[in-house]
Amino acid sequence: MHRYRSHTCAALRKSDVGSNVRISGWVHRVRDHGGVLFVDLRDHYGMTQVVCDPDSPAFKSAEIVRGEWVIRIDGTVKARSEDTVNKNMATGEIELYAREIEVLSAAKELPLPVFGEPEYPEDVRLKYRFLDLRRETLHKNIVKRTQIIAAMRREMTIGGFTEYSTPILTASSPEGARDFLVPSRIHPGKFFALPQAPQQYKQLMMVAGFDRYFQIAPCFRDEDPRADRLPGEFYQLDLEMSFVTQEEVWETMEPVMRGIFEEFADGKPVTQEFPRIPYDVALRKYGSDKPDLRNPIEMEAVTEHFAGSGFKVFAGMIASNPKVEIWAIPAKTGGSRAFCDRMNAWAQSQGQPGLGYIFWKEEDGKVAGSGPLAKNIGEERTEAVRTQLGLEAGDACFFVAGEPEKFYKFAGEARNRAADELGLSNKDQFALCWIVDFPFFEYNEDEKKIDFAHNPFSMPQGGLDALENQDPLTIKAYQYDMVCNGFEIASGSIRNQLPEVMVKAFEMVGLSQQDVEDRFGGLYRAFQYGAPPHGGMAAGVDRVVMLLTGAKNLREITLFPMNQQAQDLLMGAPSEASPTQLRELAIRPIPPVKKD
Amino acid sequence: MHRYRSHTCAALRKSDVGSNVRISGWVHRVRDHGGVLFVDLRDHYGMTQVVCDPDSPAFKSAEIVRGEWVIRIDGTVKARSEDTVNKNMATGEIELYAREIEVLSAAKELPLPVFGEPEYPEDVRLKYRFLDLRRETLHKNIVKRTQIIAAMRREMTIGGFTEYSTPILTASSPEGARDFLVPSRIHPGKFFALPQAPQQYKQLMMVAGFDRYFQIAPCFRDEDPRADRLPGEFYQLDLEMSFVTQEEVWETMEPVMRGIFEEFADGKPVTQEFPRIPYDVALRKYGSDKPDLRNPIEMEAVTEHFAGSGFKVFAGMIASNPKVEIWAIPAKTGGSRAFCDRMNAWAQSQGQPGLGYIFWKEEDGKVAGSGPLAKNIGEERTEAVRTQLGLEAGDACFFVAGEPEKFYKFAGEARNRAADELGLSNKDQFALCWIVDFPFFEYNEDEKKIDFAHNPFSMPQGGLDALENQDPLTIKAYQYDMVCNGFEIASGSIRNQLPEVMVKAFEMVGLSQQDVEDRFGGLYRAFQYGAPPHGGMAAGVDRVVMLLTGAKNLREITLFPMNQQAQDLLMGAPSEASPTQLRELAIRPIPPVKKD
Repeated sequence: MHRYRSHTCAALRKSDVGSNVRISGWVHRVRDHGGVLFVDLRDHYGMTQVVCDPDSPAFKSAEIVRGEWVIRIDGTVKARSEDTVNKNMATGEIELYAREIEVLSAAKELPLPVFGEPEYPEDVRLKYRFLDLRRETLHKNIVKRTQIIAAMRREMTIGGFTEYSTPILTASSPEGARDFLVPSRIHPGKFFALPQAPQQYKQLMMVAGFDRYFQIAPCFRDEDPRADRLPGEFYQLDLEMSFVTQEEVWETMEPVMRGIFEEFADGKPVTQEFPRIPYDVALRKYGSDKPDLRNPIEMEAVTEHFAGSGFKVFAGMIASNPKVEIWAIPAKTGGSRAFCDRMNAWAQSQGQPGLGYIFWKEEDGKVAGSGPLAKNIGEERTEAVRTQLGLEAGDACFFVAGEPEKFYKFAGEARNRAADELGLSNKDQFALCWIVDFPFFEYNEDEKKIDFAHNPFSMPQGGLDALENQDPLTIKAYQYDMVCNGFEIASGSIRNQLPEVMVKAFEMVGLSQQDVEDRFGGLYRAFQYGAPPHGGMAAGVDRVVMLLTGAKNLREITLFPMNQQAQDLLMGAPSEASPTQLRELAIRPIPPVKKD
Repeated sequence: MHRYRSHTCAALRKSDVGSNVRISGWVHRVRDHGGVLFVDLRDHYGMTQVVCDPDSPAFKSAEIVRGEWVIRIDGTVKARSEDTVNKNMATGEIELYAREIEVLSAAKELPLPVFGEPEYPEDVRLKYRFLDLRRETLHKNIVKRTQIIAAMRREMTIGGFTEYSTPILTASSPEGARDFLVPSRIHPGKFFALPQAPQQYKQLMMVAGFDRYFQIAPCFRDEDPRADRLPGEFYQLDLEMSFVTQEEVWETMEPVMRGIFEEFADGKPVTQEFPRIPYDVALRKYGSDKPDLRNPIEMEAVTEHFAGSGFKVFAGMIASNPKVEIWAIPAKTGGSRAFCDRMNAWAQSQGQPGLGYIFWKEEDGKVAGSGPLAKNIGEERTEAVRTQLGLEAGDACFFVAGEPEKFYKFAGEARNRAADELGLSNKDQFALCWIVDFPFFEYNEDEKKIDFAHNPFSMPQGGLDALENQDPLTIKAYQYDMVCNGFEIASGSIRNQLPEVMVKAFEMVGLSQQDVEDRFGGLYRAFQYGAPPHGGMAAGVDRVVMLLTGAKNLREITLFPMNQQAQDLLMGAPSEASPTQLRELAIRPIPPVKKD
């Protein structure tokens, strides 16, 4: 027989009754039922109930074992009596009568209980992560994470992509976030950087003639910790394709991502055909470029109904500034003064002057608008608003006014607030969409100049002609995001692989060809020697896993996370370097300046 | 039609004749055959021959394109005439008559030709790696590398293993090679380290209750560059299993590795059942713990035949030192004085006093030994040597004498030299084996004490009892290597997961429990809380890929390698950090000391 086990703790079934078997695992708990000891033995795969009678030769050992000891048990499989069968357990029809118990590894008193998973302080959980990871929920989340990543690899491979690893010791990237640096021992005073993303390398691979690249890529950004971002490293499903249009990227990746969501959604519905929503439209309808499409509310402009109306605040704003619009946030089933007042109070708590509203009720067999706004603009305009929005008695509508670029975020929050309060969203689904046609430039109010809105690597729609002849702020980029339930889960673009277009675009934000060469030398050089049109995207692995596990915190889906102070409490990192190490690297830590 | 292509450059077949198609790719070369232009168009997938007649509207464009320009071609597929069919090309039965050519990206004059792959200086190849990677051999090697890694993932998954990623920003590991350090911005004066291997993390995962772990793991060692080691990073197929014996690790991994070799061996034979050779035996038979088993020579001790013999040098050594042995290196077909003298001269060139030999020839219908040694020891002993080794007329045998631990390496080199000179090895095969039962301790001559021979994490055979009661230098470890064609391709062990055995083993090499805690705190702490017996191994991805591609240099199987001076010439790394970066990291480079 195998030294440690003939079966895992998840393997035994009714058909094994009568067999002599051997299992090994961790003592999940021990119960004493009238002198008979019940040991739940747990391993990676599952749990088996072990019974130890007082007359068993194993009883003495069973008496001493405690939670989380590792033991081997030899015994005989017996059927459970009908009233003790546990249908929730894969091995619930049998129990193992122990004949021999060997202690493979004892455990000291536990700093963190495994059984029952009671809440525990984070520093204890991270310091004793090897115990924390034995807990059922975290263990399952980590396994699910690995399954999701394996499914990504599988789907990408089926899609004709090949996984390539790009360097981790690379050059500092002057754009984007802060780099982690690695001092070079062989070149004193110089540093490698860990990649913020394999962006330049994957583009170089396209120029090198490889076609469909992907990588589950480790990325590194030395940012201050945030709730939704762990310090240090994170993973992207990174991909790039040659000779593609953006439509082809969408058509390639939509089934991959839909398939992954469906595979791990536990039966929740997943969007079958992802809407492609232009950035401008997303802002107008949802007040966000990351709209939560589980929320059925779509905003609409109703400016005309307030222009010249009796509601002087709105009418005055409209008259004095052609950019002013009035947006309506229709709220089905929200037609009560109490709800509308609650929304108004919430808006004030957000620093807004308030949130105008109309609500409709049935009066004398007719649908009539109520509230101060309805009174001010009169019956006809109120009815026009109602008709435009398709509202009925029992519904409400909120209004925000001003220049859209200044209020759209608040409008989006109000839209979500209203839906949440009214329970309009079916939360148990994965609502996916593409946000497309992002602006290429944006206006930098502080410096009174235009800047790249997102990614200097993206191709402007219309190419050189647009850059030369179009109002820059109206130029769109071939750039797109994939959004799920209000989170950006992927982002990508068709790249600008034409040196002259690149130089022109940089000139327009006040940078020179030299700047291009200094910042993206490898890539810019490569584009001189036959660069194919190419594009791709990168999906955040962590965000996808969080959505699919329902975990609210990155630490619940990460094996060995750092804490919020960017420390690995288990391994004791970061730590001081030895004098030899510092000497070899030719660096010296600067002692902190003492403040009086 | 698709913007760039209806087919790849490898797709068109005879069945497509008559179709109007679109392809895009790089101009591999342009030939002018009597006014008709032939363009070989290349992409990741293959090559298509394009024909451009002078009366084609595309002719003008075809005249200007040069090597490595990226173009799109629309045209009609025609069958090649029988005498121009190219059976070596997937598309060799057709050619594409161009109707329209669009230049997607021009190329400047090439610093490195792609067509024909002429040899070129390494610095140019690395600086223009995006051109270098377009060359056929390197492109194929890189693709094969990705296929091998994908096969590793597939086979491991079939074997019930799950891939987990372990942290890349971690703690400095005080054993082993030199760490790359990463200054912590949030904790000034402290450093992360990049992992030399995920050894501690994978063991922690076993303690955390995960079972069959694997990872294509990036590893980092700040070593001086060597021919067979790139500076910086490399990849391991890393794995670990719980509740296993070493036999189970072997039985699990042997089919995985055999399968991978068979899949990519291009028909070369692969060892079906890997011999398990104890370390001691490997040294005696092959003079190496990395024996090349393609070489059929097995050495044997023939001490007794020289003890008290007329060859006074050997006889005297044997008499004066009981550790002295005489090893025979039998060399079938080497039975000529010329060959034996050549071997002797080679040995002298290696700093040896010489290489004694006997060779046999047929004399008067009898097999007779020749050479000085044969004369000195006489006919009977010479015949005894011949019989023991199973040699015949036309064969030779070489002899090395002394304490085996001092000469075995040279003996192993002589064994390889003899086989190479005589062409005894069938090089076109993959000869795999396990080397097992490595010694746990070794004697440190300099410090006159025992040290760990290899890995302090390994379990000593016999456990605590052996440590307490056995001559330490006779204790074996549950430690093993996998060897192919003379290269170690994997290494592993059953781990020592028992804290008291760990402490005892460290004490024996002069270290204290405190040392254990300082060096391996996370792991030592974990072993206190229920640690399963576990073991595993790690295979060198680069080495396996080199064997399977036949590449002699790591740069021929690596996408973006550094040069031997540990520089990335393409991206310009390492580079100087900005003052802001240095200030944020609270470090200061120490200027080099000027020498007068």
